[in-house]
Amino acid sequence: MANQEIVNRKIVLRDYVVGFPKESDLVLISNEKIKLVVPEGSENGVLVKNLYLSCDSFMRDRMSKDCSYISPFTPGEPLTGYGVAKVVDSRDPEFKAGDLVWGMTGWEDYSLITRKDPLIKIEHTDVPLSYYTRILGMPGMTAYIGFMEIGSPKKGEYVFVSGATGAVGQLVGQFAKLMGCYVVGSAGSKEKVDLLKNEFGFDEVFNYKEEQNLEAALKRHHFLVIYFENVGGKMLDAVLLNMRNHGRIAACSMISQEHVQNLILVVTKSIRMEGFVVFNYYQRYQEFLEFTMKYIKEGKIKFVEDKAEGLESGPAALLGLFTGRNIGKQIYGTYEFGKPFVVPLLTLFSPSVSSGRMRYYFLL
Amino acid sequence: MANQEIVNRKIVLRDYVVGFPKESDLVLISNEKIKLVVPEGSENGVLVKNLYLSCDSFMRDRMSKDCSYISPFTPGEPLTGYGVAKVVDSRDPEFKAGDLVWGMTGWEDYSLITRKDPLIKIEHTDVPLSYYTRILGMPGMTAYIGFMEIGSPKKGEYVFVSGATGAVGQLVGQFAKLMGCYVVGSAGSKEKVDLLKNEFGFDEVFNYKEEQNLEAALKRHHFLVIYFENVGGKMLDAVLLNMRNHGRIAACSMISQEHVQNLILVVTKSIRMEGFVVFNYYQRYQEFLEFTMKYIKEGKIKFVEDKAEGLESGPAALLGLFTGRNIGKQIYGTYEFGKPFVVPLLTLFSPSVSSGRMRYYFLL
Repeated sequence: MANQEIVNRKIVLRDYVVGFPKESDLVLISNEKIKLVVPEGSENGVLVKNLYLSCDSFMRDRMSKDCSYISPFTPGEPLTGYGVAKVVDSRDPEFKAGDLVWGMTGWEDYSLITRKDPLIKIEHTDVPLSYYTRILGMPGMTAYIGFMEIGSPKKGEYVFVSGATGAVGQLVGQFAKLMGCYVVGSAGSKEKVDLLKNEFGFDEVFNYKEEQNLEAALKRHHFLVIYFENVGGKMLDAVLLNMRNHGRIAACSMISQEHVQNLILVVTKSIRMEGFVVFNYYQRYQEFLEFTMKYIKEGKIKFVEDKAEGLESGPAALLGLFTGRNIGKQIYGTYEFGKPFVVPLLTLFSPSVSSGRMRYYFLL
Repeated sequence: MANQEIVNRKIVLRDYVVGFPKESDLVLISNEKIKLVVPEGSENGVLVKNLYLSCDSFMRDRMSKDCSYISPFTPGEPLTGYGVAKVVDSRDPEFKAGDLVWGMTGWEDYSLITRKDPLIKIEHTDVPLSYYTRILGMPGMTAYIGFMEIGSPKKGEYVFVSGATGAVGQLVGQFAKLMGCYVVGSAGSKEKVDLLKNEFGFDEVFNYKEEQNLEAALKRHHFLVIYFENVGGKMLDAVLLNMRNHGRIAACSMISQEHVQNLILVVTKSIRMEGFVVFNYYQRYQEFLEFTMKYIKEGKIKFVEDKAEGLESGPAALLGLFTGRNIGKQIYGTYEFGKPFVVPLLTLFSPSVSSGRMRYYFLL
């Protein structure tokens, strides 16, 4: 088995992207054969078989040569991103064949991981493995650090979440409700608005695409104290106008390229805006895991994800993130463990179809 | 004396200002006569004779009807601002005739103060009274809270101060040196640059008007960790590009109306930007006074101020703030205590003349 050569398919970046990425910028190639052992010379290497790969918005930035805060992808090489994988072979004493792990891996069938930052062993397998790409992975940590640490919520405070159906946003809203806050969300379709109100318990939700005036929309839901920033640009300007004195803004992303003009309000309203990169907080993963597993076991957190199957569906899934087509987190599984759950003991599972694509909808 | 009526001259705002203010927007009027007693019906009123009035940048915003964060001035009424004054009569048990005070007062010979927030009794009279409009007043508190509290400096960190010869900026730079930081400043003339380097001990200074590219100018002095924000706009954009991860921005003002386009770097560099309004921190005045008096007594802090004499010189003095003409803090004294020092026991006093205007230069 170890000496047998098998094809290792990859999704590679054709060339650096200028402007909006297209599906054709990503190519599936199948011309590499590998042996399922960590090769000689790869000290501490860990060879994994990828099970779930995650589509995240920061991956778009990495397609551009000018990406400033993280290294761009290399044309001709597979994309890298968060995923769940099973160890096939390991020269690292911390991992052994058969271990389940999550962390940074490649968009390919098998990846040789040499930079294990983060690569975290999965201990709880009584939840779907795909959770480690979202509620128990990077988006969960992002929501936790951004809201609980930087937002410093107090009971009764008003919280606003933009991009609220996103993988991070839906968790921030639910963490906020669990902390006794009043939660306002925005999303870009009626379906998403309904989901936030009816399933996630947001107190107020508006469809930003239907608002002529974001400032006025937020004024209806005023007294904002905490803003979980996903968007930037005009939305940030509108939030600043409607924020109370001593408000806090936790900024994990700013998708918009628009300039910001109301920043003077940061001064006059004594607002604290703090950016953070979740990568710097993985030393606190255990603390986060305990916090979140408790609510998962109590059935107090819901999660919606989008899922596509097969490596070949990756490019379309990733680009769907940037057009607002997806709800929740976009993940896709490669062929082994093709069924949604490794250990299917969840309490409720309600698949629904939207926009012609399968959407899995979990109540934990 | 108390029943004698005397003329109370005032500088009033002619009408709300649109665009850049002109001297003619401010008018000296001399048609009011008052008695030097707190009038009947003014419970807890304090009548003061103004000695020093301070020109501050926020006063420009108050000339506009659309000022959002503080009430605009009322046309026909005297301007209000920070000043040093002597109590003439008081119905407030905390103050008695003869007390020296600093706080919010009017641009007039005498003011009836009914809203005593802040109105602080002056205890140390072994420094020039005018200090309470600057190093021991609002600008001093602003530098202290912004730099020491929000900036959280650590020894060896790189600090950048824009508008560094301003009343606040020159103190921030010196506090930073006292904390063992490396201090970079920007100012708008060669004279100011020399002053910062030669007298205030800044490690690096550049003239932002001579720089084609602010980003490149800052890159020469990179590794910024703390930015004391006075300017906003393009300067903030350039700072964001040159800031290290986990940098801190203490924002006490943003004069520029330019939009900001590099805010995404707040996220990617994990920057904390916090605005503050010194008005909310006066409960910590005693702590600040002890901290600063110690350095003043040890001769470790220098201060430059601009001074003009007579109420009638107020409009030109205030407008000079917005054209970069002034160095340090613009104050002007009304007729009593016309000499610069009430208690002239300071160690060094070096008047110099620049731009045809008297400039007082103190080494404490």
